[in-house]
Amino acid sequence: MQMSNRITSFQCSPIRRLVPYAREAKSKGIHVIHLNIGQPDILTPDEALQAIRNYDEKIIEYGLSEGEVELRKGLLSYYRQFGIEGLDEDNILITTGGSEALQFAFMTLCDPYDEFIIPEPYYTNVATFANIAMVTLVPVTSRMDDGFKLPEISEFESRINKKTMGILLCSPNNPTGHVYTEVELRELLELCRRHDIFLVVDEVYREFCYDGKSFTSILSFPEYADRVICIDSFSKRFSMCGARVGAIVTRNKEVLESALKLAQARLCPPMVEQRAATAALTAPAEYVKRVRECYEKRRNTLIRAMQRIPGVRCSMPKGAFYFVADLPVDDAERFALFMLRDFNLEGNTVMFAPAEDFYVSKGLGRTQARFAYVINEEELEMAARCLEAGLKAYRKSVMGL
Amino acid sequence: MQMSNRITSFQCSPIRRLVPYAREAKSKGIHVIHLNIGQPDILTPDEALQAIRNYDEKIIEYGLSEGEVELRKGLLSYYRQFGIEGLDEDNILITTGGSEALQFAFMTLCDPYDEFIIPEPYYTNVATFANIAMVTLVPVTSRMDDGFKLPEISEFESRINKKTMGILLCSPNNPTGHVYTEVELRELLELCRRHDIFLVVDEVYREFCYDGKSFTSILSFPEYADRVICIDSFSKRFSMCGARVGAIVTRNKEVLESALKLAQARLCPPMVEQRAATAALTAPAEYVKRVRECYEKRRNTLIRAMQRIPGVRCSMPKGAFYFVADLPVDDAERFALFMLRDFNLEGNTVMFAPAEDFYVSKGLGRTQARFAYVINEEELEMAARCLEAGLKAYRKSVMGL
Repeated sequence: MQMSNRITSFQCSPIRRLVPYAREAKSKGIHVIHLNIGQPDILTPDEALQAIRNYDEKIIEYGLSEGEVELRKGLLSYYRQFGIEGLDEDNILITTGGSEALQFAFMTLCDPYDEFIIPEPYYTNVATFANIAMVTLVPVTSRMDDGFKLPEISEFESRINKKTMGILLCSPNNPTGHVYTEVELRELLELCRRHDIFLVVDEVYREFCYDGKSFTSILSFPEYADRVICIDSFSKRFSMCGARVGAIVTRNKEVLESALKLAQARLCPPMVEQRAATAALTAPAEYVKRVRECYEKRRNTLIRAMQRIPGVRCSMPKGAFYFVADLPVDDAERFALFMLRDFNLEGNTVMFAPAEDFYVSKGLGRTQARFAYVINEEELEMAARCLEAGLKAYRKSVMGL
Repeated sequence: MQMSNRITSFQCSPIRRLVPYAREAKSKGIHVIHLNIGQPDILTPDEALQAIRNYDEKIIEYGLSEGEVELRKGLLSYYRQFGIEGLDEDNILITTGGSEALQFAFMTLCDPYDEFIIPEPYYTNVATFANIAMVTLVPVTSRMDDGFKLPEISEFESRINKKTMGILLCSPNNPTGHVYTEVELRELLELCRRHDIFLVVDEVYREFCYDGKSFTSILSFPEYADRVICIDSFSKRFSMCGARVGAIVTRNKEVLESALKLAQARLCPPMVEQRAATAALTAPAEYVKRVRECYEKRRNTLIRAMQRIPGVRCSMPKGAFYFVADLPVDDAERFALFMLRDFNLEGNTVMFAPAEDFYVSKGLGRTQARFAYVINEEELEMAARCLEAGLKAYRKSVMGL
């Protein structure tokens, strides 16, 4: 039988190819330290868990396709803490995770074969969402040498053509940890205005900006209101990744009307977890502050330890909880496989995400990998020791150096 | 700014156009009886609600993209009760509601401009899912006069061409209440084998077959294993529509592999509600039996009352909790609007779903409407009285009869 070529031929990311090897290593009693995933060990706010335990409905009924009113109102108050004013609850569509928000954005803004410009390295799952909507991702490469800052505006401008519907950013960035500055955002917004296209910004790591730096949301530029779309999620902010509650936020009513058609077909986001999300918003400010401090310490620990490893290059990321490092190897995926299959240091090894897949452009990122620092510092220290020893062993036995 | 033509031009269903009028009627103190929606008043099994209240994780973590193992194992035992053997948990992919299962099926099986054959009237949201995957729905009309039974196989065969990837059924059917027989299914399966295409069956109303009739699942034909895909959901079976837990079930590993790529991009289905679904499966058989008996009584009440209304035609549906009736009006949507805006009987009125949108073929179903019997019998009796009086008033004041 024939099936969809589009999906059948779609390559899954290298990290998925590595999973069976991690499982095998574990089955041999090796302790695999996961720097590959963004599943934090941080506790979900007790307010959210209590809301689940206090769930007192007798019927888990359908809710509104656009999400529960109380949750959307809660988000409004939350946005006000970031100085974002002038929104009302009709500017918010609750989605089943940030994932669905990204899908809705592509489908609402683009017809098949339209284009979206995206700085690379980028969050890989975007490739699947673009594929579903048949949107072509057009990359602009950000470079490790300048901390993955926004490439020159002229780079973006040179990619714009009649099929370009918008630019997609992630800030703070997964995978690089870069936080786009107000100046960078304003330049991009001006470019978008000049060419009459959208700017979509995934801000799901909004809270996690370090070194005392504040965050500028794309929603705080009301003068560009109609072309700005914000992707949001509760997953990382409140360590409730499995709850699948996100949002698409925009002052552009036409975009929301279109997205609502997609939302109505899938009926509603999960109802119990919307309760949990609503309650999470009532957690004291101290919660997020503590989490941020915790990640900042972990970042410092892992970055410093990795910068000491000969041949490894990585700069201090400003936000989120990832960074991309360049490794002294021929192929980061091959090295990742080696670490899982052929190596351990005192019974420990490390799993990380080869970065090649974070690039749209073929051949880039082959020696890079993404590391997540969502586990405790002791483990991070051990991970760095494993990487150092693993690199030495790999370079000797595989690369013959 | 340009946006997606495909989504912008997409017509939302008439029922959504009626919603503001229902709201207005309510604001005027009129009691609107909802025969338009499939939100049952049946209590969710206590097992499911207890599982939510007993949720004891400290972190709502990401789960498996294919769904939690315990839930999939639970489904296997459940399927065995229907005589479905030879499945294992790898044949099941848990989805965010049956909605996502339908989307995954279209996207996995079809490339843009491929075709799927569907008996009409059909479940309208399928149109949005087909639109998302750019699949063309090719209708075969089932007729009220013969109880909406499966159209002749030759009708299906005449629609098959090189672009046809499969046939989509819903059994028990939303909106008609028809339950496809084993003979009908076997004929369709033979046709699918002959033309090497898929048969996808949405069985989310599986439990709701009346008059002592048993249900034949498409999964109980292992000899056609590779071309059979079952869409499932917990929403109706356990009255937990808002939980958004469904499944795609097939013995075809390639289909599941492809669907898993889509699933991986959206990370996982909602985790708390997967717990609830797992627990719902442990509810005593008595639960579903009682719900079935309750719906059967409601069906009898509403159908008998409506059959007494002059000019209304409807036959006894065999399953699900909907039926399609033909009304003595010029336009069922116009009549629905009249009922909400211009009519009440002792402060009551009725909302129902005009059926035109349940047809792919333009111009069909204009005088038909779908009625859901998921509320208590007293309300159903009152609804029928309202309809009778409303029809009289509409025919007089609007149609001049």
